[in-house]
Amino acid sequence: MRIRNHALRSKIMSAADAAALIDNGTTVGMSGFTGSGYPKAVPLALAARIEEQHAAGNPFKVSMWTGASTGPELDGALAKANGIDFRLPYNSDPVARERINKGEMNYFDMHLSQVAPMAWQGFLGPLDTAVIEITGIREDGSLIPSSSVGNNKTWLDRAEKVILEVNSWQNEALEGMHDIYYGTALPPHRMPIPLVKPDERIGEKTLRCDPKKIVAIVETDAPDRNAPFSPPDDKARAIAGNILEFLGHEVKVGRLPASLLPIQSGVGNIANAVLTGLVDSPFDAMTAYTEVIQDGMLDLLDTGKLRMASATAFSLSPEAAERINRDMHRYRDKMILRPQEISNHPELVRRLGCIAMNGLIEADIYGAVNSTHVMGSRIQNGIGGSGDFARNAYISIFVTPSTAKGGDISAIVPQASHVDHINQDVQVIVTEQGLADLRGLSPKERAKVIIANCAHPTYRPMLEDYYARAQKESYGLQSPSIPGEALSWHKRFIETGTMLP
Amino acid sequence: MRIRNHALRSKIMSAADAAALIDNGTTVGMSGFTGSGYPKAVPLALAARIEEQHAAGNPFKVSMWTGASTGPELDGALAKANGIDFRLPYNSDPVARERINKGEMNYFDMHLSQVAPMAWQGFLGPLDTAVIEITGIREDGSLIPSSSVGNNKTWLDRAEKVILEVNSWQNEALEGMHDIYYGTALPPHRMPIPLVKPDERIGEKTLRCDPKKIVAIVETDAPDRNAPFSPPDDKARAIAGNILEFLGHEVKVGRLPASLLPIQSGVGNIANAVLTGLVDSPFDAMTAYTEVIQDGMLDLLDTGKLRMASATAFSLSPEAAERINRDMHRYRDKMILRPQEISNHPELVRRLGCIAMNGLIEADIYGAVNSTHVMGSRIQNGIGGSGDFARNAYISIFVTPSTAKGGDISAIVPQASHVDHINQDVQVIVTEQGLADLRGLSPKERAKVIIANCAHPTYRPMLEDYYARAQKESYGLQSPSIPGEALSWHKRFIETGTMLP
Repeated sequence: MRIRNHALRSKIMSAADAAALIDNGTTVGMSGFTGSGYPKAVPLALAARIEEQHAAGNPFKVSMWTGASTGPELDGALAKANGIDFRLPYNSDPVARERINKGEMNYFDMHLSQVAPMAWQGFLGPLDTAVIEITGIREDGSLIPSSSVGNNKTWLDRAEKVILEVNSWQNEALEGMHDIYYGTALPPHRMPIPLVKPDERIGEKTLRCDPKKIVAIVETDAPDRNAPFSPPDDKARAIAGNILEFLGHEVKVGRLPASLLPIQSGVGNIANAVLTGLVDSPFDAMTAYTEVIQDGMLDLLDTGKLRMASATAFSLSPEAAERINRDMHRYRDKMILRPQEISNHPELVRRLGCIAMNGLIEADIYGAVNSTHVMGSRIQNGIGGSGDFARNAYISIFVTPSTAKGGDISAIVPQASHVDHINQDVQVIVTEQGLADLRGLSPKERAKVIIANCAHPTYRPMLEDYYARAQKESYGLQSPSIPGEALSWHKRFIETGTMLP
Repeated sequence: MRIRNHALRSKIMSAADAAALIDNGTTVGMSGFTGSGYPKAVPLALAARIEEQHAAGNPFKVSMWTGASTGPELDGALAKANGIDFRLPYNSDPVARERINKGEMNYFDMHLSQVAPMAWQGFLGPLDTAVIEITGIREDGSLIPSSSVGNNKTWLDRAEKVILEVNSWQNEALEGMHDIYYGTALPPHRMPIPLVKPDERIGEKTLRCDPKKIVAIVETDAPDRNAPFSPPDDKARAIAGNILEFLGHEVKVGRLPASLLPIQSGVGNIANAVLTGLVDSPFDAMTAYTEVIQDGMLDLLDTGKLRMASATAFSLSPEAAERINRDMHRYRDKMILRPQEISNHPELVRRLGCIAMNGLIEADIYGAVNSTHVMGSRIQNGIGGSGDFARNAYISIFVTPSTAKGGDISAIVPQASHVDHINQDVQVIVTEQGLADLRGLSPKERAKVIIANCAHPTYRPMLEDYYARAQKESYGLQSPSIPGEALSWHKRFIETGTMLP
């Protein structure tokens, strides 16, 4: 019995009835961070309602706030129904992405640590409805969180009405794994966040919710839609090898402790390859302070090399989700899920001294990184938490294969077509070609190392040629550039399908 | 008697003798933040020594670390002597700027809050000599700081040998005004910084220094080289008016308290105009948590509208310096000078909820800001503390006249030629034309407001035309752009001297 508070059982209804409580033009805050912990039934029912209304000639769109990306039953279904007017803070759904890049959906792509404080600040407007997946409701009415925490605390606090999805697919052993910090405030009332180690608990195990705000409870039994795991390819393994060698060197010269510092790792193939590589590394008693718990961390936890992982969500393949679910009692003491304003808090990332590893779309020869906009205009996903971590990390590493699209795109370009991470926040760039340690270097020193160590051999001479001419023609020589040519590779790709001449 | 520790009096020597202790190829950490608290004698003597060595055909260059910019007797003299090989973290000296932009000096332009932690981290290499201006030495050997704190604590802790300049021009009443926090550490030993209000003291009044490291003490009596104050012009007053109206509105709708939140303000004409405007504002009992204490703050302090100001340095006109010096006993209880890693600490800026106001060179139609590189390549000064404040501020405001160079440069451009502040960190842009409140807007919504409210009427139609065509031609429509044209205004300026066709 998942709903242990009897008074609340009277609020149980169908997803369609719950969705009928959401009106056109309102703002909805939903749970969900990557493929986990998002509501599975109400968004689908809402999409159906929107399609009906559209068929009847009535306008119907909502503003949609979440933790980060969600699943196809949420972003996908609502975007397909053309039901989202405004979306924050992150999206990776292909249908929604298409709408955004056609100019049909307003998308405000945000630092993930700032979503909750900005929602409190008020300029985003009121939050009408929260739709939150949970694992269960305790006798006292407190809510047992699901496989992600995200902004759920803030949505429950801020929303005028609350719709809950109680998903019995989620393992009941999740209870007790979460750490919900209730000490945040608006200035001038903010206090230090009292966390000094990744494995500390500073909050409560459950979410509070005023029962008077709960207008509907929907029972579901549906799996998280986790992305399948593709094993690391040669390039990912080469990148991971370069990073492990670098970290080993930093330990050797005494700039990192032998257990490293808390690891933050973006999602994906390369991140998993690095984590997998750490299994055979000499580092021990490691910790992770990151956004998501990924496949690659499970082996590390099993071997004991990773002592514990703090995050705001699981981001697992179906196999890994199954593995955790089977053995939750063993894993749960090594994991803490927190609100994303805590998992990504700049104060904590700087204090803990995270080693940040994030992916990129392109970096320029001075190390400015574009993480979001293909060819400067087409959004891929969003900045997510990369800015929270990269700016405040002890070491900020960015990883990418040196080319994309079968070699038609160089990940190293004369000038980034969009900038998400300024050169000061990019300390190490790693491709399968090699690693550029940019710490303490001036722009021209950075350019030499990036071109030599990271660029693909096909593009390296083109970059050398550009940089050599820029040093002769440039208006100033702090960061030499040729404005008429700096974005010509992007222009060429758009026109011809390749950055190659 | 400024040197009250008798044992240390044996170290008194001439500036030339002290400068002779600094060797070619070494790294020197000097005091100084804007025109205050930098050593006035040893750098000049070092410059003379370098010129002699160069005349004799010997190589002689040093790496130079400071707090931020300094005075002509330091950066100017050493750059003129071609004695600086590598410079961090900030420069505004015209002679040094020229060397940098000719490619003759390596300049690593850094977030000012990160200088001290990165110096501890080790990758910048060892610090051979610290040259620190102080106001005096107490009986117990502790050092009374001067008119700036900057990175002095870190230089004194890290340097192998220490040269002190005891400047009797500095007011002895400075003693007790400083707050030197000794609680920083490298991870995994970092603790919360226990400051929750701008007027709290969390440290010591003096700097510690191992007397065994002190190799020379030079006595000076030389004024800080403060920049003259130019009264606000019409544009600066218009910008200030726009900001004050905005802040008033935020108070009215309940998004800011009536005493506002701690103000951070960049240096210069416009910043001073805003501060001057606050004298006649309805806001009361304000505080400042910022880098520098400027002219405009004195009237505010006199009226009591500004309750107190926390900074790392004075940045005053000669008249204002005189005014403070005359009345130091009255002002000193309303001012605290701290190390720049504390005045600019992201943890504290976010906790206190600063209202950040910084200048810019150009912003693009999506709100990405270039604060450093004219035409994308020629460095003006550096990023300074703007990134520390803008990313973590409660409200991040950027100010600029809408044009520069008599109208030949538009401050609003299709695409920034260099990015220091990504669009997510730029919430409000203000010119004399108007104010763009960008909070919570998607890129296309931002473009409309920036072009309409901030661009100069001469450039507005050109921006509208670009943006309209970008919406038709762009690869993606999240942030529409035309790569072949995005930097054409900069190209045109370099070729013809104007961005106008």
